Amino acid sequence: MLGNKVSRQKPCHHCKSRSASAPPDTSTIHYEKFWLYRHCSSVQQRNRQAQKAGQLFSGLLAMNVVFLGSAFISSVIFNHVAITLADVWILLSILKLLCLCWIIYYLLGTSRQPHAVLYRDSHAGPIWIRGSVLLFGSFSILLNAFQIGYSAILIQCKTRVEILFPSIEILFICTQAFLLWNHSKDCIQVQHNFTRCGLMLTIATNLILWLLAVTNDTIHMEIDSQLREVEQRFAGNETTSCTCPNTTICKVFQKGYILLYPFSTEYCLVCCSVLYVMWKNVGRHISHHHVPHIKPKFKLHGVVFGPLLGTAAVIIGICVFMMYQIQATSSAPNLQVFVMYYSYYIVLLPLMSVGAVIGTIIHALEKKELDTLKNPTRSLDVILLMGAALGQIGMSYFSIVAIVATDPKDLLNSLILSYSVLLIFQNITQNVFIIDGLHRQPFVAATDARHTGHAGKHAVASELPGEEETTTSNKQEHTQISPDTEEEVKEEQNHEAYDQRRVSMLELGQEIQKLSLSYLHSYSHLNWKRRALREISFFLVLCNIILWVMPTFGAHPVFENGLEKSFYGYSTWFAIVNFGLPLGVFYRMHSVGGLLEVYMTA
Amino acid sequence: MLGNKVSRQKPCHHCKSRSASAPPDTSTIHYEKFWLYRHCSSVQQRNRQAQKAGQLFSGLLAMNVVFLGSAFISSVIFNHVAITLADVWILLSILKLLCLCWIIYYLLGTSRQPHAVLYRDSHAGPIWIRGSVLLFGSFSILLNAFQIGYSAILIQCKTRVEILFPSIEILFICTQAFLLWNHSKDCIQVQHNFTRCGLMLTIATNLILWLLAVTNDTIHMEIDSQLREVEQRFAGNETTSCTCPNTTICKVFQKGYILLYPFSTEYCLVCCSVLYVMWKNVGRHISHHHVPHIKPKFKLHGVVFGPLLGTAAVIIGICVFMMYQIQATSSAPNLQVFVMYYSYYIVLLPLMSVGAVIGTIIHALEKKELDTLKNPTRSLDVILLMGAALGQIGMSYFSIVAIVATDPKDLLNSLILSYSVLLIFQNITQNVFIIDGLHRQPFVAATDARHTGHAGKHAVASELPGEEETTTSNKQEHTQISPDTEEEVKEEQNHEAYDQRRVSMLELGQEIQKLSLSYLHSYSHLNWKRRALREISFFLVLCNIILWVMPTFGAHPVFENGLEKSFYGYSTWFAIVNFGLPLGVFYRMHSVGGLLEVYMTA
Repeated sequence: MLGNKVSRQKPCHHCKSRSASAPPDTSTIHYEKFWLYRHCSSVQQRNRQAQKAGQLFSGLLAMNVVFLGSAFISSVIFNHVAITLADVWILLSILKLLCLCWIIYYLLGTSRQPHAVLYRDSHAGPIWIRGSVLLFGSFSILLNAFQIGYSAILIQCKTRVEILFPSIEILFICTQAFLLWNHSKDCIQVQHNFTRCGLMLTIATNLILWLLAVTNDTIHMEIDSQLREVEQRFAGNETTSCTCPNTTICKVFQKGYILLYPFSTEYCLVCCSVLYVMWKNVGRHISHHHVPHIKPKFKLHGVVFGPLLGTAAVIIGICVFMMYQIQATSSAPNLQVFVMYYSYYIVLLPLMSVGAVIGTIIHALEKKELDTLKNPTRSLDVILLMGAALGQIGMSYFSIVAIVATDPKDLLNSLILSYSVLLIFQNITQNVFIIDGLHRQPFVAATDARHTGHAGKHAVASELPGEEETTTSNKQEHTQISPDTEEEVKEEQNHEAYDQRRVSMLELGQEIQKLSLSYLHSYSHLNWKRRALREISFFLVLCNIILWVMPTFGAHPVFENGLEKSFYGYSTWFAIVNFGLPLGVFYRMHSVGGLLEVYMTA
Repeated sequence: MLGNKVSRQKPCHHCKSRSASAPPDTSTIHYEKFWLYRHCSSVQQRNRQAQKAGQLFSGLLAMNVVFLGSAFISSVIFNHVAITLADVWILLSILKLLCLCWIIYYLLGTSRQPHAVLYRDSHAGPIWIRGSVLLFGSFSILLNAFQIGYSAILIQCKTRVEILFPSIEILFICTQAFLLWNHSKDCIQVQHNFTRCGLMLTIATNLILWLLAVTNDTIHMEIDSQLREVEQRFAGNETTSCTCPNTTICKVFQKGYILLYPFSTEYCLVCCSVLYVMWKNVGRHISHHHVPHIKPKFKLHGVVFGPLLGTAAVIIGICVFMMYQIQATSSAPNLQVFVMYYSYYIVLLPLMSVGAVIGTIIHALEKKELDTLKNPTRSLDVILLMGAALGQIGMSYFSIVAIVATDPKDLLNSLILSYSVLLIFQNITQNVFIIDGLHRQPFVAATDARHTGHAGKHAVASELPGEEETTTSNKQEHTQISPDTEEEVKEEQNHEAYDQRRVSMLELGQEIQKLSLSYLHSYSHLNWKRRALREISFFLVLCNIILWVMPTFGAHPVFENGLEKSFYGYSTWFAIVNFGLPLGVFYRMHSVGGLLEVYMTA
């Protein structure tokens, strides 16, 4: 249904009769109205003000819900007699049901209205984000299935409600994943304020779920007793005797729950970011001018050292991680394993930083145009990168102060000190590299552009000035050699002259030869820069993946080394780690996405 | 010197030879450059990218400094053996000296360079903000003078460093206040990145000072032992015997220190907001098109009920506050005083909410144009209002959950519950009212506009469409009656026709009579709305002042009633209050500023 509308839209774009700069389909656009701004002189201004007011009110709704949820969760943590985890679950279930109602209404009602989705934001919901929604969503569903199974086994000492809650959660995850997979690019043009409120309610629910997961992560530290603790909290004091019978299936459920837990945390954050982009896109009018955006494809050829080095880093990382986990779970971790762990980081982080710095320098050397069009997805990416990095940077500064104040000359302490300093440096350089890369226009080879024809013309045209600058010395030659590209721009005007030239086949043959020579020349000229950028970003992707896997699956030396814990006191350091670690994990995941984009556009 | 430049600039604005839409003085504008973006095709684009990069890097600098400072302060709080308050003071003194160097360089170097300040942002640094910088600055200086005096009296058990630190602080406050008083409107056009880094360093220093003051506010709860505690922390354990000798001057110093303390907290926040606007304005080009902005003046005539009701609220509030303070400081506060305190709020808050709602409705009824020009000061105002409100709203939600979970039927508890709910509602309605009011164009009476002559012409012209809408029914008559306004717009073109008409004195007399009649008619038509807006905003200003004074000078029933403290535990509730209360105080102060602006533009 939706696809229909978009395709119905498409042929109209190629109509030559309409000027490209005029806003398309002005008759079908629903401009927003708001009673506060009835008296604006222009429709556009009223629309913009109504948009702002709608965003303000839906934002206020979300703020109130999030605060209420935070207060509930804090009560559970600090006073779990008065408010139990069951109360929070009831609150969350109500919220989830409300969200479900809205999502179903959106899918069946709002998005099927006439002229509901006139535009789709090509930048929103890239495949890697939607893929991770699906991946984490399935893991979260599995997690809840395990929980249902576990509760079913121990049904004698559990209430039926404990099966109901995960069922609602599964329903919520499925519907939300479906919405995000199909509609993440929508710029909805009807029922603006209702849609905004629905989106904000869903964001708030996800945020509360995340908060709950993060605070439940408290228990994550003592991994094995986690489930028992959750049960105890859940049911009060009466079920302390309820432990897992020694059947295999019960153990599988228990282990699976512990392993899958981090993914549900990530799922909430990813959903929040996609929903936020949808919220920003409500009522947005995209001029068809810059809709035809050439999607760069993921190609692996031409990169050697990046994947090699990266794979080495991943393999060594997995070994280090395994050894660390074996040591950490079997007994109190000794000095040796910490030295190994931190040494790995101290070798890897400078390599990554140097890579990012070289990448930034190459970006500066490259003569590419900047993409300065409005793009909510990219703005959000930048904000999320910077915001998520704050978690790790903050933790590092706390470590640095603690170590400098105690004994920086001790072997382990000096290792942690350099690790912290390097981590800050790595985060900053990588952020600069990614942000800079996201603002570069994708490289489009001349041959690619010519195949795409009309659709790609604007992109090529805007790319030309930069390209021309590179060959200023042989400009005369350039205009002689490749009149093809320039003619394409002026195609309509001097079509006849082009035809006339076309008959002399000999001339054409010479031209083609010259053109391909110059193309090869420019390709080999640009090549080392593009190749270096791809090598670097591929290497950084792999490094970020391993740095993401390690804390996700339970290696938390910042907590287990005991240094900062004894310096700041258990509860303070705990709060800092609880805030910083999940953000750090999210940062790595998000960096992978950003770096993949940099890789593809290089 | 600076004034010179601006006045040299001014006559050029009135030159008739230059078209108004062309950017002025293109030869003197220093466009920004950044090595990362050398290859942009257009100067404007390169300038914008360089601006973004400069903001990113200076922001990163501030972030690192703030994190380092926070880590230091946290260490002092949680481990004051390893890191003492003296270490934090040393760090802060270094930062302050760096800021001082930059400020002096800015005052003597940067701002005196040729073409350094081509534009001044008329919205930045309004008089009430600069006034509060001076006011709070002087109080902070007094505070530090008291501290020096106190240290000088107890010189036998204090180091000389304790006189040095407040001296540096006084120097810093003076220089910063001078900078903000004279240069808060600057849009600096030279040495962009250096200026940005300097500004960000100063902001970071102020933020750390604020953080320190807020965490030192811990001690504020036990007011009388505050100073002793600070001393103990400062000097370690050796000076426990150092107490104030029973001289009057020592007692004055001690009391003055306690009374003035809250103002230094506010000073830091106000400076941060002004410096942030300066930072946003670095490298900004304002087209002279909308520079001539008519400043509405503060006039008191025409408002009666607002001031009366507001004054009553202030007087009752002061009485309640005094009784509360006497009770709270003399003994453990009893139930009665809390009931009185909360009842006062429960009566006042609904009145304020109703006022704000009515004001918003009147805004909607009024046929006024919206001011949608780019305005960093206003954007910051909106963000600060929303952000600062979060403190109180968050605290209220925590209170609500705590009360609902314990016993909402108890008298005091039900009072606190309604207080919390009303506070949330009041904050939100007031924010909507202020934000909406800030976006309305100031009302300019026709006569006022005529006096201001050339400068006001654009503002009047842009206001006309909205005005005309109100009198659509008698449009024919309108154009006949007041050709004066329209002629003014076309003055240059048909000056001769105007002269010709001027000779027939009889006609003119009739016209003037008709004009004044129609003016009176339109004035009385608009009057009730404008008057109601002014009454409401004046009332809200006075209410916010009293709600600002009470927590600033020490009435903290949220902490002293003991309900939430026992529910969440001492340390948790303490953290929440420590975060929420200063923000709440800042919110009230900022609301006063915003409401004054709404009052003046109504």
